[in-house]
Amino acid sequence: MEQNVFFLPHEGLKLAELAEFLGAELANPDHADVIVRSVAPLNRARAGDVCYILSRRSRDELVTCEASAVICDKALVDLIPEHIPVILSSNPHAAFAMAGGLFYPAALRPVVFSSESEIAPSAVIDPSAKLEKGVIVEPMAVIGAHAEIGEGTRIGAHSIIGPGVKIGRDCSIAAGASILCALIGNGVIIHNGARIGQDGFGYAPGPRGMIKIVQIGRVIIQDNVEIGANTTIDRGAMDDTVIGEGTKIDNQVQIGHNVQIGRHCAVVAQVGIAGSTKIGNGVQIGGQVGIKGHVTIGDGVQIAAKSGIMTDLAAGGQYGGVPARPLKDYLREAAQLMSKTKQRESKPGGKQND
Amino acid sequence: MEQNVFFLPHEGLKLAELAEFLGAELANPDHADVIVRSVAPLNRARAGDVCYILSRRSRDELVTCEASAVICDKALVDLIPEHIPVILSSNPHAAFAMAGGLFYPAALRPVVFSSESEIAPSAVIDPSAKLEKGVIVEPMAVIGAHAEIGEGTRIGAHSIIGPGVKIGRDCSIAAGASILCALIGNGVIIHNGARIGQDGFGYAPGPRGMIKIVQIGRVIIQDNVEIGANTTIDRGAMDDTVIGEGTKIDNQVQIGHNVQIGRHCAVVAQVGIAGSTKIGNGVQIGGQVGIKGHVTIGDGVQIAAKSGIMTDLAAGGQYGGVPARPLKDYLREAAQLMSKTKQRESKPGGKQND
Amino acid sequence: MEQNVFFLPHEGLKLAELAEFLGAELANPDHADVIVRSVAPLNRARAGDVCYILSRRSRDELVTCEASAVICDKALVDLIPEHIPVILSSNPHAAFAMAGGLFYPAALRPVVFSSESEIAPSAVIDPSAKLEKGVIVEPMAVIGAHAEIGEGTRIGAHSIIGPGVKIGRDCSIAAGASILCALIGNGVIIHNGARIGQDGFGYAPGPRGMIKIVQIGRVIIQDNVEIGANTTIDRGAMDDTVIGEGTKIDNQVQIGHNVQIGRHCAVVAQVGIAGSTKIGNGVQIGGQVGIKGHVTIGDGVQIAAKSGIMTDLAAGGQYGGVPARPLKDYLREAAQLMSKTKQRESKPGGKQND
Repeated sequence: MEQNVFFLPHEGLKLAELAEFLGAELANPDHADVIVRSVAPLNRARAGDVCYILSRRSRDELVTCEASAVICDKALVDLIPEHIPVILSSNPHAAFAMAGGLFYPAALRPVVFSSESEIAPSAVIDPSAKLEKGVIVEPMAVIGAHAEIGEGTRIGAHSIIGPGVKIGRDCSIAAGASILCALIGNGVIIHNGARIGQDGFGYAPGPRGMIKIVQIGRVIIQDNVEIGANTTIDRGAMDDTVIGEGTKIDNQVQIGHNVQIGRHCAVVAQVGIAGSTKIGNGVQIGGQVGIKGHVTIGDGVQIAAKSGIMTDLAAGGQYGGVPARPLKDYLREAAQLMSKTKQRESKPGGKQND
Repeated sequence: MEQNVFFLPHEGLKLAELAEFLGAELANPDHADVIVRSVAPLNRARAGDVCYILSRRSRDELVTCEASAVICDKALVDLIPEHIPVILSSNPHAAFAMAGGLFYPAALRPVVFSSESEIAPSAVIDPSAKLEKGVIVEPMAVIGAHAEIGEGTRIGAHSIIGPGVKIGRDCSIAAGASILCALIGNGVIIHNGARIGQDGFGYAPGPRGMIKIVQIGRVIIQDNVEIGANTTIDRGAMDDTVIGEGTKIDNQVQIGHNVQIGRHCAVVAQVGIAGSTKIGNGVQIGGQVGIKGHVTIGDGVQIAAKSGIMTDLAAGGQYGGVPARPLKDYLREAAQLMSKTKQRESKPGGKQND
Repeated sequence: MEQNVFFLPHEGLKLAELAEFLGAELANPDHADVIVRSVAPLNRARAGDVCYILSRRSRDELVTCEASAVICDKALVDLIPEHIPVILSSNPHAAFAMAGGLFYPAALRPVVFSSESEIAPSAVIDPSAKLEKGVIVEPMAVIGAHAEIGEGTRIGAHSIIGPGVKIGRDCSIAAGASILCALIGNGVIIHNGARIGQDGFGYAPGPRGMIKIVQIGRVIIQDNVEIGANTTIDRGAMDDTVIGEGTKIDNQVQIGHNVQIGRHCAVVAQVGIAGSTKIGNGVQIGGQVGIKGHVTIGDGVQIAAKSGIMTDLAAGGQYGGVPARPLKDYLREAAQLMSKTKQRESKPGGKQND
């Protein structure tokens, strides 16, 4: 990638400053004054770039690497050529992520539209809404009656904050999102076009068609949650829909009414979670997974992409398939399917007989 | 759930009034003056709450229940402790839904932004558009030339109504939706971010890439349809895309050009229906189902979540799987898969041999 | 479909003019002055309509056809009744698509809101943005600092163009789309609610939760790409996300960071492509397919709807299933599943034994 205008590299930090920020140390104190400005993958890092390695498989790429620093674990330090400064870290991946955030603070938050003024004149803000100082409201945002927004939060262009919604401090609501009937903690990021807090899907069959069941719950989003573009999270029916602290949700995820997701979960794109399901802490859910309503997923569960979950899943397990079963079984069956194909192809005349 | 600010309970109704509204009757006329204000699930109903039961399994929860009324069928009335007033109804679920709507009329419609004025000054309305009296247009909505909007309809903040679009009476278009090339009946609800009436996906392969096939049909949405957040419904190619009366569509559903859906269907989140498919009346489609183009689904069909429909389905059947087959067969095969896993785990040494 | 107000038929062209535009010829020069105005399917074409046939199966429909012209290959000309003028084309489907575009030029682009003025007064455009002449900006669009927009491009109502974004000539950005951190070629169409260029989904596990990995790449969209409603395309992490020339992407597709899609691909609705996957030229991907990250799909590959791709796929192949295998194998297995169901149903007593 050629240099781009969207994220300019940092003006430069000394390696010693970076190491201190990371809580890491330099392998060789002589490198303390080396200047770094950016992060890059190992295979195309240049002067000024910091990269990282996680295993001995990176050995070959290191030989020609032009990075100004590599972050690695002590056990791998012998791999690094003499001319490349080394930052020692027991968690190089996390240290690399932190370095990226230090170099590109603007990239930690959704793209900013208005810089010059705190409240865009084109925004429509109900007079009863309470905005702490330092709140930024971008062009054409709409903020309803009695909404409350904490210091340092940015309300993006064209976003919609419903009446009575409470948003904590240092949140970013990206352009075009809508947030209704919700209480939102601190440090939350909601990306473009996400739809939070509309009606859940609930009806009772009646004599002249389906009768709407009122959805009078809320959406509770705890601190440091991130919610992807065009994701939809319905408010609770008579309970609340809850997204736990630190959980990260990708784009185009659908979360039904009354769903409760624990802390520090990762939910990949296009997942659907039906109503009233409970998901523990630290759960990882692959893309396009579907989870039935009213089931319970234990802490630390990992679910392979495209799986269909129809039953409770015990904590700590890995699962895959439709219906989901232990991942090992699912992968074995998948391998059998693939090898059947290969046998058929290698059998003399096999192709003709089909 | 603690009391919330988004939906305040009703100021109070007498049970006799509620029963009359429901077309139901009190088991004991002495309870006519009991005051009720809200609905709640059986397990945490308190004074003022109405709840309902459908089977004898609720017996234990009823013992400690503090509800001010329970709706149930005559056949279950002996379950209800003496101190709880009973509303007799042959369809307690429907009666409960109706009660919820009576207590929380605001929850029957998308969240309202502007209360003070009928036409927000920031809305951009083409002078040739015709709005009946009582139409409410919220901030920053855009209404195109020659659009017509019926009495009692609310056009939400930031929503977009295309030129020539006709919307009936008592509809609610939620914030951030866009509606193009569409004729919409009465009592229709369209949720946030739904996209109605854009181009279908149609191309002819040409010598220098795909050539766009113009999409000159419309979207017809009949009375009392509800369409979920971020759902997309393409307009017809040379025919119309039609959503039948009373049909309810959840979030993030994709409906291709020329699709015709009958009356009183329920389509759960993230379903995709490809072009020119015809779906009968009363069809129920589970989440993440995919339906091929140009197939016909008979009246009353039920399709399990995550199924893939590649062929016509006969009326009244239940189907599941990819490819979809009779539900009983699909569930049997799923059970066999699950039991294989269990046998393997219980076999001595089974785990090591894999 | 009755005549509709959204797309009025053309005022009329002579067949000779149409044939010339198509690079085709009339079978009978006597028909040069026949007037045509619209396109229609064979089974309900009337006077003024042009339709097309691809095979001898259309023979019966032609007998009663009232079209003013049929486009067909020389080899089929004997099928056409004497009274219907014939346009000879070696690619009747492409010629029909071109005819549609000629009759309905407005339908080649997203619906237009403002006709009277070039820059709607309600739009918010940063003074540093550069708009070539002939750019149209519809009501309430927001254009960020240093954005550049080419001649003939239309920026739709309520759409959001981020700082520094460059958009070429003759593009259409439909209402409610957002475009951030992107470079966009000429002739690109982006439909309503599409979200281009927000953060990818990348985190490193840290001691106190997931640490965001900055996403400092871009989205590059080449000439003549079309992107569907509510589709999401994340910007690159440290590389770029690239959509190749002429590629068409349907609604509600999710494309992760660093994905590279080649030229002239077709990606049907609700597909998800995980990060860093590379897709060749001319690839066709059916609806609801999921593709793992970091895999490579060769040129010309065709993938059946709802498949799950976990490995590289060789150029030119057809694949289906989860996990995806050669399409022939997948279809055979599907057929076996279906026939098992049928055997079970036809076995005497089979139903009772289940």
